[in-house]
Amino acid sequence: MSNTCPFCSAAIRAALFAENQYCMAVYNIAPILPGHSMVIPKTHYQSIHELPEVELQAFFLFARKITDFLVTYFHGTGFDWSLQEGKEAGQSINHVHLHIIPRRQGDLESPGAWYRKLQNAQGIEIDQKDRKKLDPEKMDTIRHALRESFQHFTGKTE
Amino acid sequence: MSNTCPFCSAAIRAALFAENQYCMAVYNIAPILPGHSMVIPKTHYQSIHELPEVELQAFFLFARKITDFLVTYFHGTGFDWSLQEGKEAGQSINHVHLHIIPRRQGDLESPGAWYRKLQNAQGIEIDQKDRKKLDPEKMDTIRHALRESFQHFTGKTE
Repeated sequence: MSNTCPFCSAAIRAALFAENQYCMAVYNIAPILPGHSMVIPKTHYQSIHELPEVELQAFFLFARKITDFLVTYFHGTGFDWSLQEGKEAGQSINHVHLHIIPRRQGDLESPGAWYRKLQNAQGIEIDQKDRKKLDPEKMDTIRHALRESFQHFTGKTE
Repeated sequence: MSNTCPFCSAAIRAALFAENQYCMAVYNIAPILPGHSMVIPKTHYQSIHELPEVELQAFFLFARKITDFLVTYFHGTGFDWSLQEGKEAGQSINHVHLHIIPRRQGDLESPGAWYRKLQNAQGIEIDQKDRKKLDPEKMDTIRHALRESFQHFTGKTE
């Protein structure tokens, strides 16, 4: 846990729609496409190499399930996964996180345009904090809808 | 196994520098930065959802080890992971594969420029087959150097 890490802050729960023992799924505060979410370990690991094997395995099993859900919920037909480690790779928040972006045909002018689109249009990148943010009310609506739907999706009721 | 899939073809072994029971690591035929490689399941899975749990877990444990090696070998300080599923996400070869790209400060004009750089300069994307390719001799040299170094890295001698 880091006192300065936004993913370790209690405020992250405002975006949380699914979790298990080791991981949480949060809706991106500034989605680059509908459904853009992140899977994050609950422990403040700065590097993917810090995760114990059992947590690494749990992380990607959970990420796969969340991806299945998000692609279904947002009517995608594909998805992008992106994980950046280090500032030089585009990471801004120093806590392991996997971006999950549901995709469908024609959602961007070309399949790989999600980086370029952001940079050219707004001068900002996928992992920067100053993209246009959802207001708290909208985030809360999305989060609740996702949370409820995910529970149905997995057959869980808790 | 698919007769038309380049990742199922025997020719892929010309780029292979590490493997285990389930996965292989291959150097990209047209690297967007030095070290750009891919981890690929040996079975022709079209979707990440097709992998049995044990193979999904093995895939990311292997990918992490390969990443550690590549970042060390290519003097990186960070890395990008990218996995695309579906044409609409930028995937061109219909067989699960994770791109691993070692990164270091200043390797591109901005951290997230690897997509844009390719598109603006060459009109091509990370996962298209028509990027400039290494000639077979150069690929063979790289592959052998990586293979040998990886064996030292992991302490294996086979």
